[in-house]
Amino acid sequence: MLNPAVPLKSAATSPVPVRQPLRPLDEALSELLAMALSLADLERVSTFDADGRVLAEDLISSLDVPGHDNSSMDGYAVRSADLATTDVLQVTQRIPAGSHGHALEPLAAARIFTGAPIPPGADAVVMQEDTEALTDSASVRLLTVPSAGQWIRRQGEDVARGAVVLARGQRLSPAALGLAASIGFAQLQVTRPVRVALFSTGDELVMPGDVAPADMPPGAIYNSNRFFLRAMLKRLGCEVTDLGIVPDRLDATVQALAAASLQHDLILTSGGVSVGEEDHIKPAVQTLGELKLWQLAIKPGKPFAYGRIQSSSADPFAHFIGLPGNPVSSFVTFMLLVRPFVLKLLGVTALAPQAMTAVAQFSWPKADKRREFLRVRQLAGGGLALFDNQSSGVLTSAVWGDGLVDNPPGKTIAPGDVVSYIPFSALLS
Amino acid sequence: MLNPAVPLKSAATSPVPVRQPLRPLDEALSELLAMALSLADLERVSTFDADGRVLAEDLISSLDVPGHDNSSMDGYAVRSADLATTDVLQVTQRIPAGSHGHALEPLAAARIFTGAPIPPGADAVVMQEDTEALTDSASVRLLTVPSAGQWIRRQGEDVARGAVVLARGQRLSPAALGLAASIGFAQLQVTRPVRVALFSTGDELVMPGDVAPADMPPGAIYNSNRFFLRAMLKRLGCEVTDLGIVPDRLDATVQALAAASLQHDLILTSGGVSVGEEDHIKPAVQTLGELKLWQLAIKPGKPFAYGRIQSSSADPFAHFIGLPGNPVSSFVTFMLLVRPFVLKLLGVTALAPQAMTAVAQFSWPKADKRREFLRVRQLAGGGLALFDNQSSGVLTSAVWGDGLVDNPPGKTIAPGDVVSYIPFSALLS
Repeated sequence: MLNPAVPLKSAATSPVPVRQPLRPLDEALSELLAMALSLADLERVSTFDADGRVLAEDLISSLDVPGHDNSSMDGYAVRSADLATTDVLQVTQRIPAGSHGHALEPLAAARIFTGAPIPPGADAVVMQEDTEALTDSASVRLLTVPSAGQWIRRQGEDVARGAVVLARGQRLSPAALGLAASIGFAQLQVTRPVRVALFSTGDELVMPGDVAPADMPPGAIYNSNRFFLRAMLKRLGCEVTDLGIVPDRLDATVQALAAASLQHDLILTSGGVSVGEEDHIKPAVQTLGELKLWQLAIKPGKPFAYGRIQSSSADPFAHFIGLPGNPVSSFVTFMLLVRPFVLKLLGVTALAPQAMTAVAQFSWPKADKRREFLRVRQLAGGGLALFDNQSSGVLTSAVWGDGLVDNPPGKTIAPGDVVSYIPFSALLS
Repeated sequence: MLNPAVPLKSAATSPVPVRQPLRPLDEALSELLAMALSLADLERVSTFDADGRVLAEDLISSLDVPGHDNSSMDGYAVRSADLATTDVLQVTQRIPAGSHGHALEPLAAARIFTGAPIPPGADAVVMQEDTEALTDSASVRLLTVPSAGQWIRRQGEDVARGAVVLARGQRLSPAALGLAASIGFAQLQVTRPVRVALFSTGDELVMPGDVAPADMPPGAIYNSNRFFLRAMLKRLGCEVTDLGIVPDRLDATVQALAAASLQHDLILTSGGVSVGEEDHIKPAVQTLGELKLWQLAIKPGKPFAYGRIQSSSADPFAHFIGLPGNPVSSFVTFMLLVRPFVLKLLGVTALAPQAMTAVAQFSWPKADKRREFLRVRQLAGGGLALFDNQSSGVLTSAVWGDGLVDNPPGKTIAPGDVVSYIPFSALLS
């Protein structure tokens, strides 16, 4: 008794595929990254606007920072040997920041301010709080005996002339922008942003706002993947074109992919890459290029596709990545595979997120043959708690959690075990 | 012998101030946060554009997610009890995602795809890879015996109708946007961005690009703080007005601050807040409102100022925060004090960055009476390495490092000691 609305396909058009061997994540990631050649297009941007961008040149300092020995405190520059014989010195000069003094005479002190150059002859600074004003304002009493070098920032202490201060392939942080500015760089050469076309597939998907919750037909679900994928791509500095939901016909899908391949480095989708899944994505990508379907030995996140799309042989190709449709699988595979792929396109040299060790405060009694990425949260008192429901459909685990435990295949976890933990903050920046 | 170019001020106009007691960080932070009342202005934004914004309403789900029990695999929905008597079932219906089936007869299977609703009567899914195609395409051989409930995502498993899915005061992550979308929210009510005016002070400061490195006069240094402060404010979603370097005159400073107070929630500066420092900032803020100068018991980062500025009694006030001028002090006090202050203005409820425990692979033999924030880096093999030069002028420590060790006052560190570590990724997002 068939459902009359949905005819059963014959075995010839919908063969049950052969079980594929599962691929280890590291092997798949290596193969994927080998495809990602760094973009050759560079651009110069203001150092102010370079946060998160990837440096495309070595920055070599043409000056010492600080440029001169200078005071790291407000106080008095002195000759420390003088303090063996007296605690009162004559104040013979005053050196605000931005100014410079002259040679300091024996038994004299220079009033000095933070950042001001140390006058010749002086070898220590006594901070103001360790001094006493005398009624005779031309002299000062020192309440401590300074050691030579005290409160002096040495010339070149931060940066030495000729040093490579920031290296090509480094992703720029706020502190790195400050460092570049401190050696005089008002502009920086960076890789242009990666251009990504994003779309969804799946007849069951409805966009929020298009249908009210009360009116959702049976089997329909709101599209959620495109929301976090777009946000994660933007955090990587990508220019994102959202193609929306491509019409569920082969010709339309081929046409959309071919057009997108002309203007994008990467076409990213979620859903439609499971074994035997009903979708036009796979044949459409195969029409325009090549497609590899992988079964990754990770949980969540088994199905994963990589391909290349070319509108015509005269045109450049675009990378294609197909993520699994389950929200958590899509979220996790983005962080583990797409993020390093995009960073590699940008020329970043350090691609792996740094895992940390942490102590599990939970049980995971049933080992899986796949490497698992469990959603966990740090506890205020230390250690990690596990989200109850580790189903790949449960996106709340990725909101409640603040990171992943990277659990090797076949391993159970007991409270007190040391595990490998990767915070989301490291995977989302 | 005075420097003729820079006359020495008399003791009357430049008194040596009394040494202030050092304030513990937690006490200063509590007092600071008590000043930060959450902004009342809200705005509705597309869920697509809400990454990093702060939710100003509880999101309550009006539906179950998933809406129905559904398959988490491509395969066959079955009645698990049937498999006690046979391993071949007749395929009587086909249920793609977005469709729905009818009641499953005994000894029958439904071809089913990921996301499709489980038909009445079925209680398990056998994944496609665990089945064998028969030449008679209307039936299937099952190679495993499923347990009841296998590969079924339960109705409401992710989100139950009526549940508060995301709470007011939560900062929205990419996964949170996905979760909001999954319950049908196309727009979200969020706090408007914090408006911050940023400026620098210090006669020694030169903007990169204005003077070439070879032409830098003695004592001059490039401004670096505004570069990382601006980037860090933007990462918090702030609208930043850069006032540049305000002319070094009291009337000009008062005028600039008064104008800025009309259009900004916060005026932020670095430099000019040390004890006895030569600057117009302090008197200018005091002319327009009130100013507290704190000496924090932390290293780096001792001087810190909080104040309020009001153009006239009829106008709203702006908060004023003055950070120390040393780059690392400025960087660290921003993360420890300004970041939670801005998040509190936005209405965020969880303000403290989560510290983790880690193992020091370094020595810190000289304890300080102040709480120290050491720049460290995670080692590939585990544990933390210390940046050699912990001077507050050395911004390279903040680029080389990937986080801070929060070291209590009076504590030394030996290799193997467990320390409190806060990754920059958690402090910069």
